[in-house]
Amino acid sequence: MKKIPVLEIFGPTVQGEGMVIGQKTMFVRVGGCDYRCAWCDSSFTWDGSQRATLLTAEEILQKLEEKGKDTFCHVTISGGNPALYSQLEALITLLKEKGMKTAVETQGSIWQEWMMMIDDVTISPKPPSSNMTTDWKKLDLYIQRLTERSQRRVSLKVVIFDKHDLRYAKKVHARYPHVPLFLQTGNDETKQDDTEWLLSHLLRKYEWLVEQVMQSKELRNVKVLPQLHTLLWGNKQGV
Amino acid sequence: MKKIPVLEIFGPTVQGEGMVIGQKTMFVRVGGCDYRCAWCDSSFTWDGSQRATLLTAEEILQKLEEKGKDTFCHVTISGGNPALYSQLEALITLLKEKGMKTAVETQGSIWQEWMMMIDDVTISPKPPSSNMTTDWKKLDLYIQRLTERSQRRVSLKVVIFDKHDLRYAKKVHARYPHVPLFLQTGNDETKQDDTEWLLSHLLRKYEWLVEQVMQSKELRNVKVLPQLHTLLWGNKQGV
Ligand code: SF4
Ligand code: SF4
Repeated sequence: MKKIPVLEIFGPTVQGEGMVIGQKTMFVRVGGCDYRCAWCDSSFTWDGSQRATLLTAEEILQKLEEKGKDTFCHVTISGGNPALYSQLEALITLLKEKGMKTAVETQGSIWQEWMMMIDDVTISPKPPSSNMTTDWKKLDLYIQRLTERSQRRVSLKVVIFDKHDLRYAKKVHARYPHVPLFLQTGNDETKQDDTEWLLSHLLRKYEWLVEQVMQSKELRNVKVLPQLHTLLWGNKQGV
Repeated sequence: MKKIPVLEIFGPTVQGEGMVIGQKTMFVRVGGCDYRCAWCDSSFTWDGSQRATLLTAEEILQKLEEKGKDTFCHVTISGGNPALYSQLEALITLLKEKGMKTAVETQGSIWQEWMMMIDDVTISPKPPSSNMTTDWKKLDLYIQRLTERSQRRVSLKVVIFDKHDLRYAKKVHARYPHVPLFLQTGNDETKQDDTEWLLSHLLRKYEWLVEQVMQSKELRNVKVLPQLHTLLWGNKQGV
């Protein structure tokens, strides 16, 4: 069985962003990404600064249970881009057998069949400030497959740094009007370790984003959120 | 037609809490409450300090459109306790005709048939720190009716000030395990106008709540959230 490159397993903690914001969850963070976003807040998953450990699905489950004991029923698989790994299917199947709910976030660049089993999928196409380019045709298919599922949920999330990103978000919303859209404050200070300063900086950015969205007639049915974990713990990893 | 006592109409702004946190929405706040929670953060709706204006459903819709123009498609009816007023049915019917989504929050003490039409209903039974007593039988019926609906959502929200409230939340979760449960930081400083101080105070309280819930094996499938509007704007009314 192919192993999975894991960078960190932690929790239980709160999901700090997006469609399951606030949810008590364990995190499995896998290494590697096919993107190189300018402002990536988890570049340690792909820039070589930290080493992944190769683990089987059973080993991951065991570590989750060691850390989370009997306090959790929700697991978030994050990255990097988890969609790089078809072998995550084994983990997701195991988690389902244990009655766990699952969530995943991916930019929507690579499809995996196991996406169909995930309870809450967040697709986060990357706006211009990331320096990445969106393959809209691929994204169309991705979203089509995921919206076909019943009982399970899908949402779009766009991180916003500037007015160009806002324009991009409007395009996303117009193209997929029936998919819940989450707009999120971008963190442009991922190396900042003055947590106090970062907090007020990020809240000001959140307030700016709220103002922009409130005036917009294109962005009507949207949710605007900060990252709760960054407000609480700054740029600290593993919380 | 019976008029509705309205205290404020404002927005668009973000919903700061609960199941639709982050949602761009207009607010209609009605006056009056059958409860007197010790820490009520909207006591101006019932303590006589502010006067309500009696408005028809059409007048409310007109004011919403004046303020929100064509930038909104979601309306939150808050209070006080909106469930005091059967005449809200006319407003909700109007909003539905306009294609608006609706949300309401109530403590679950009084039933209204129009609850069946609301897209997102938050039931917020009050914990011991409020000095109110929960009528569990009534709450059972309330939740039963609301969970029978398809396509529409219901959640429970408990505001937490201390360990007694946490115990109460566990009881709520055990009684209604299939209803999504939101735990929210209590604001014990609703008269505080030092926004900076309030922010760090409330974040510390949120962190405490997160810690407590993460350790708990009874509170597994829950969401833990702060109040976003209070983090942004302190105790300011009408934002
Ligand atoms: S897609 Fe995500 S993990 Fe990959 S570089 Fe962009 S922000 Fe980082
Ligand atoms: S039920 Fe709500 S509005 Fe009524 S007193 Fe309690 S907190 Fe205030």
